Amino acid sequence: MSHQALLYSRSHDESYLQSLHEFLRIPSISTLPEAEPAIQAAARWLAGAMTDIGLQRVAAMPTAGYPVVYGEWLGAGPHAPTLLYYGHYDVQPVDPVDEWLSPPFEPTVRNQQLFCRGASDDKGQVYLVLAAIDSYLRTEGRLPVNLKVMIEGEEEISSPSLAAWVKEHQPMLACDAVLICDSGILAENMPLINHGTRGMAYMQVDVQGPATDLHSGGFGGAVDNPFNVLVRILAQLHDGETRRVLIPGFYDNVAPPDALEQRLLAQVPVSDQVIQALTGAPAVAGEAGYTAAERLTVRPTLDIHGMPGGFTGEGKKTVIPARASAKVSMRLVPDQDPAEIAALFERYVRSLAPSTVKVAVRTLGLARWSLVDLHHPAVQAAAQAYQAGFDVAPLFMRGGGTLPIVADFQDTLGVPVVMMGFGLPDDNAHAPNEKLSLNLFRRGIETVIHYLALLPEAMQAPR
Amino acid sequence: MSHQALLYSRSHDESYLQSLHEFLRIPSISTLPEAEPAIQAAARWLAGAMTDIGLQRVAAMPTAGYPVVYGEWLGAGPHAPTLLYYGHYDVQPVDPVDEWLSPPFEPTVRNQQLFCRGASDDKGQVYLVLAAIDSYLRTEGRLPVNLKVMIEGEEEISSPSLAAWVKEHQPMLACDAVLICDSGILAENMPLINHGTRGMAYMQVDVQGPATDLHSGGFGGAVDNPFNVLVRILAQLHDGETRRVLIPGFYDNVAPPDALEQRLLAQVPVSDQVIQALTGAPAVAGEAGYTAAERLTVRPTLDIHGMPGGFTGEGKKTVIPARASAKVSMRLVPDQDPAEIAALFERYVRSLAPSTVKVAVRTLGLARWSLVDLHHPAVQAAAQAYQAGFDVAPLFMRGGGTLPIVADFQDTLGVPVVMMGFGLPDDNAHAPNEKLSLNLFRRGIETVIHYLALLPEAMQAPR
Repeated sequence: MSHQALLYSRSHDESYLQSLHEFLRIPSISTLPEAEPAIQAAARWLAGAMTDIGLQRVAAMPTAGYPVVYGEWLGAGPHAPTLLYYGHYDVQPVDPVDEWLSPPFEPTVRNQQLFCRGASDDKGQVYLVLAAIDSYLRTEGRLPVNLKVMIEGEEEISSPSLAAWVKEHQPMLACDAVLICDSGILAENMPLINHGTRGMAYMQVDVQGPATDLHSGGFGGAVDNPFNVLVRILAQLHDGETRRVLIPGFYDNVAPPDALEQRLLAQVPVSDQVIQALTGAPAVAGEAGYTAAERLTVRPTLDIHGMPGGFTGEGKKTVIPARASAKVSMRLVPDQDPAEIAALFERYVRSLAPSTVKVAVRTLGLARWSLVDLHHPAVQAAAQAYQAGFDVAPLFMRGGGTLPIVADFQDTLGVPVVMMGFGLPDDNAHAPNEKLSLNLFRRGIETVIHYLALLPEAMQAPR
Repeated sequence: MSHQALLYSRSHDESYLQSLHEFLRIPSISTLPEAEPAIQAAARWLAGAMTDIGLQRVAAMPTAGYPVVYGEWLGAGPHAPTLLYYGHYDVQPVDPVDEWLSPPFEPTVRNQQLFCRGASDDKGQVYLVLAAIDSYLRTEGRLPVNLKVMIEGEEEISSPSLAAWVKEHQPMLACDAVLICDSGILAENMPLINHGTRGMAYMQVDVQGPATDLHSGGFGGAVDNPFNVLVRILAQLHDGETRRVLIPGFYDNVAPPDALEQRLLAQVPVSDQVIQALTGAPAVAGEAGYTAAERLTVRPTLDIHGMPGGFTGEGKKTVIPARASAKVSMRLVPDQDPAEIAALFERYVRSLAPSTVKVAVRTLGLARWSLVDLHHPAVQAAAQAYQAGFDVAPLFMRGGGTLPIVADFQDTLGVPVVMMGFGLPDDNAHAPNEKLSLNLFRRGIETVIHYLALLPEAMQAPR
């Protein structure tokens, strides 16, 4: 029974918040080499907190990079399910720092929102899971499930060491389901389960024309300018009317969502109007024939992120640059193969290049999509937990982002990954003034308590 | 008679070179605010040199910016023509400094080439004119023309103060022709007269989509990416096959060169093969139906110089930038009006923009083209001077670059501008390892001596 745990969590939310403040004050920015001491301090703090709540075998375990803090409680017995919880203790950089209304590493509450780097992504969500475990253990003396906790320190730098570490520790990590709380819901009263993630192929196109930079007064008009060429290539990646990607074969392996998923997706209140309001764009557009919710989740996309080369300063300079480049990524969906898409991209880009330039296409990164079985009892238990915690049934929507660890967990451990999140679209993760709703912090603790309580019965029900 | 002057210059070329070395050692980089003392030192050095050779009323005259060093010799009498010589004593920055084979401000001779920033552009060419004047005055005691010399210090920053200064000092600058030695010839034995310059409209296009940068995981596919939009706009500025500019009305006022100019241009040995060899491009291309020489001189062009915005660092970042920009310039020819072309550009770009973005088009700079009357006796005398100095008749070709002062002189003073240059295409003006051919330094002195000698008779001949 989780009733006592719920009551305990409610009466202790102030002390839980104080502990979270301590955690948030540690500037564990994994992209900055000089922040290594802070990363290590965050790992130590976390190991201490996990020990305090009663986890066992707690250790900051070495990886090829920053440590994974691991701990477990395996007293539920061999017939109870085993849940592996994954989170991360590293955070994004804080620049532009002068846009913060309060210091980025000083937890500050305004309007029932807790502002601090990491408040939503992901320290606040990590700590609410720990608080749920603590409330359970303090009141019941035990958990209804066997629990393993692993919190990594390299998520914001694409988890370079994690997949190998998981493979290496596969026996230790054996479980029946993985829980991740590192995503968002749509609104305070609109919980959401992400039952998939998009994959990615991140490419760079380099167009080399003349051997050196030229003056457009001396050569303009008589030699192809790499930027003039590059924009013609890039413009042919999309149809300007339908916004469909024109790379031959790009959509060949896109699998449409099944009937259940289509029905669930149709219930998600993400419309063009919502996207316009959230982004402030003058108007929105996307692939013709699909809704905004579909474009964000079950459809692949292509975005240009930047075009290095030439003159980008203030004022004017009349250079014909020797080289012009573009950074382009594609978000991929089942059953697109990232390596195959990268090859199709390269072949198509090369086919568009005139003989006046040399074109190099490099793959900067590949990541797999993931799809979680909606019918799995661990997912259904999450829906019941949200219903209990929020008094409303959750929506189901695949995530638009890329989280390669989901596919890694599913493949390596052979279990489903349950993504229950407690962030909001306006939490400013990765931006100045990151925050977490205090209401969702409390609801998050309760929802996780419900999940721990509901999981054993769900897993034992006949499928 | 210029014979004695020629002999004098030949026997004094070592001391002239030593003086040039002094001038070159002064790092008068006008783009760098911290170089102001060097700019002032270069002006003082120049005033001293001009006084030493016998010019009168020598002064570093104030402008709104850096001084113009002025001097004159008006002893040829009222019936002799008056020539105004214009040059500049400021130089380009030296970065990337580690690509220089010898220190950028230490004159160094290798293979009969004098390496130093400013050797070709324009201190070396300024000093060869002064050496010609000196040789004349030392041997004849007088010049065959009345001469006015003005050397400015802001050419490399687009001469912001010059047009106003010329207007203000119009009576002092009154003359029959202007001489500029700040251009190049095609090869050591291929002298060239630039009888025109291209104009310019330099534009910036800013495409604003969402109000803030977005994560492509969160919004990719459901909102137009400003770079995706911008490349579609820019790709429509040219026809990809013919390389013609597609801005409606762009070519409406382009005046074809007259029969004489066409005949002269056909003699210029600038071919696609030459451009390819000079630039190192894999192949070259330009506006269909025109030769390389025509594309560089009598045809307008459009170049993209850089595309600021988004992520341009190493590696990958999945930002949908709020804003994407492009720097675009057009080189213009008679009778295109720069302001009108800027307006046509803006109207066309706006017409291509979808409603999903806001497009701002800014004019960063406008400059007029110039065309010099090929039949003018001051130009014909320059051809004769080259014939005498190089033993070969010069070619005639408009310059591809932009030198607004040419149109300013022609309009304000009502006289032709004669552009005799002694640089070479591989002089690396504006680049590391700038140099001047010592052979052309000597031929330059002699050619200018011939020009001073030939000008009076040419100007008195019936036209």
